[in-house]
Amino acid sequence: MAGVDEFALIRMLNQSGMKGVPGPAGSGVSVGIGDDAAVLRSAGGTELVVSCDTMVESVHFKPETMTYRDIGYKAMASSLSDLAAMGAKPRWALVALASSRGLSAARLGELYDGLYACANRYGATIVGGDTTSSPGGLTVTVTVIGEAAVGRALLRSSAKPGDAVFVTGPLGASAAGLRYLLAQGEAAPLLEALPDAIRPLARAHRMPEPRIVAGLLLGEARTGLCGALNDISDGLASEAWEIAEASDAHIRLFGHCIPQLDELRAYAAETGLDPLDLALYGGEDYELVGTVRADGVDELSGIFAQAGLRFWVVGEVAEASPYGSPAGVTFIREPGGEPVLLGKKGYNHFA
Amino acid sequence: MAGVDEFALIRMLNQSGMKGVPGPAGSGVSVGIGDDAAVLRSAGGTELVVSCDTMVESVHFKPETMTYRDIGYKAMASSLSDLAAMGAKPRWALVALASSRGLSAARLGELYDGLYACANRYGATIVGGDTTSSPGGLTVTVTVIGEAAVGRALLRSSAKPGDAVFVTGPLGASAAGLRYLLAQGEAAPLLEALPDAIRPLARAHRMPEPRIVAGLLLGEARTGLCGALNDISDGLASEAWEIAEASDAHIRLFGHCIPQLDELRAYAAETGLDPLDLALYGGEDYELVGTVRADGVDELSGIFAQAGLRFWVVGEVAEASPYGSPAGVTFIREPGGEPVLLGKKGYNHFA
Repeated sequence: MAGVDEFALIRMLNQSGMKGVPGPAGSGVSVGIGDDAAVLRSAGGTELVVSCDTMVESVHFKPETMTYRDIGYKAMASSLSDLAAMGAKPRWALVALASSRGLSAARLGELYDGLYACANRYGATIVGGDTTSSPGGLTVTVTVIGEAAVGRALLRSSAKPGDAVFVTGPLGASAAGLRYLLAQGEAAPLLEALPDAIRPLARAHRMPEPRIVAGLLLGEARTGLCGALNDISDGLASEAWEIAEASDAHIRLFGHCIPQLDELRAYAAETGLDPLDLALYGGEDYELVGTVRADGVDELSGIFAQAGLRFWVVGEVAEASPYGSPAGVTFIREPGGEPVLLGKKGYNHFA
Repeated sequence: MAGVDEFALIRMLNQSGMKGVPGPAGSGVSVGIGDDAAVLRSAGGTELVVSCDTMVESVHFKPETMTYRDIGYKAMASSLSDLAAMGAKPRWALVALASSRGLSAARLGELYDGLYACANRYGATIVGGDTTSSPGGLTVTVTVIGEAAVGRALLRSSAKPGDAVFVTGPLGASAAGLRYLLAQGEAAPLLEALPDAIRPLARAHRMPEPRIVAGLLLGEARTGLCGALNDISDGLASEAWEIAEASDAHIRLFGHCIPQLDELRAYAAETGLDPLDLALYGGEDYELVGTVRADGVDELSGIFAQAGLRFWVVGEVAEASPYGSPAGVTFIREPGGEPVLLGKKGYNHFA
């Protein structure tokens, strides 16, 4: 199939044709896709939480690392992850697409299939967007709009000395999955077709799950229980540095406390990689890293357990920096080991 | 200068460094650029109006048609124009940028200069975005969030038989400016350096003004005075067709009533172009086209005059289609001329 007509694509996305129509009950959509703009009704007593994320062919994905469905799913997931990191509830999304003329309607359909699958899973309604051609590869920008109770969004700047530092899941798997897929060097196979030992790693890279429920639990917990919160898009080191700098605090991370999948440890052992290096610098795990008052760890564990979730304490906010600096991150690999100043380097597209 | 560091760029955009901080009073920004997402406070009694637009190098602009400042200004203007077309008040914007590594910090600075100039002019606060590298050219996506009183956003689907069809300004100038600049074939000169006879055409193409004030006047007018509303991004023909189809109505446009700049008529005469063809199919004028109750034209003229604005009646919504079709647009070039079914073709990136 050759290129796809923009209007046909919009019609495809908008079952109701070219008119802006209300969305399903509870979606808050007064006018959806099909007019110049969407019209949305926000719930009372809330603030809007908005963010956008761009994925670019050859930079964020290649044919051997992702299917088109994966690209759509991950583009939506990475944007929603920013809402999770604020403790916000996803409401709406807009999708801007620049794609080469050669991209078939079937591939675009798969892309939107992934976008919708992730949006539906986490309660976001796609209310608009833009499609345009591009002489280069595919670029996908997803803007998400969520809500949080007034004054309750969770910021990076709220870490306090004495807090425990936690993460919501195993780290490093996405980077390992990426390495595996690149090494195969062929078009990304379906996840089902991958070996059992690899599938969780590839899934972490291709279909990451934004930690929306965990973010909401943290946002709704009693004031002050959760301090700072970030999502881990650029690796734990970079995210911990962001919290440390925004909070003027010093964070100490313990390597042996960082949760990692058995499959990751096995893959790392086989390939001679350091699994902790993947956790600290690999990025794109989209777990949350945050701080919790030290006397609130048990309370938060209880809240998470009620929802079938857990978290892992991986560090602490130090009373004072061992280096005398106002903010930073040190890393202690093994119990009793020497703290080293952790390099900040994360995933930086312009580096 | 070589590439630019993403974090340095974010810092440049965010005078306050890496912390999300409140915006200026009245901006509704509780937390601005610098955290995972921005936190915004919407005014009471309003609905949100949201849209996004993408501009791609070699598709929407080339070095000979736009400076980097123009690209920024127009990317913001074209998105804000969608809010104008809904009668909404601009509040916030997010900017997603994919740029080649070779783009200097100075050029990026000019781009943001244009983005901020347009956003400031029309009351939108830039609250977030994403910057990433791209192996291709520059891609800019601007998402805008505005507000309208509940139930008062102006839709395409509200045209009614008997309504007058109006536009808010001269049409075709942007397309003429584009043709002039492409014919010159050198890097786009500053507007000030262009001949007087060309400057308004080039300005229309490079720095279009979204008709925010006109849109707000139409949105705030008494209920039912203004019917349908669209912005003219794809040419009058295409936009009139969208209103006709969304409203199940038949629109009759009168060629001799369409306002056009003297400079456009002169340029068209010189180059052998049909100025009406540029108005109907040129696109990117970003004026508004709408319908007003026939007995409300004088009232609306008065409202516009109070604000130092005017509009031009260019057609009518017919009682019945001369072709028996449920919806469509006919065009009568001169008084007493034969109506012809107007071709729909507009600016379609995938065509």
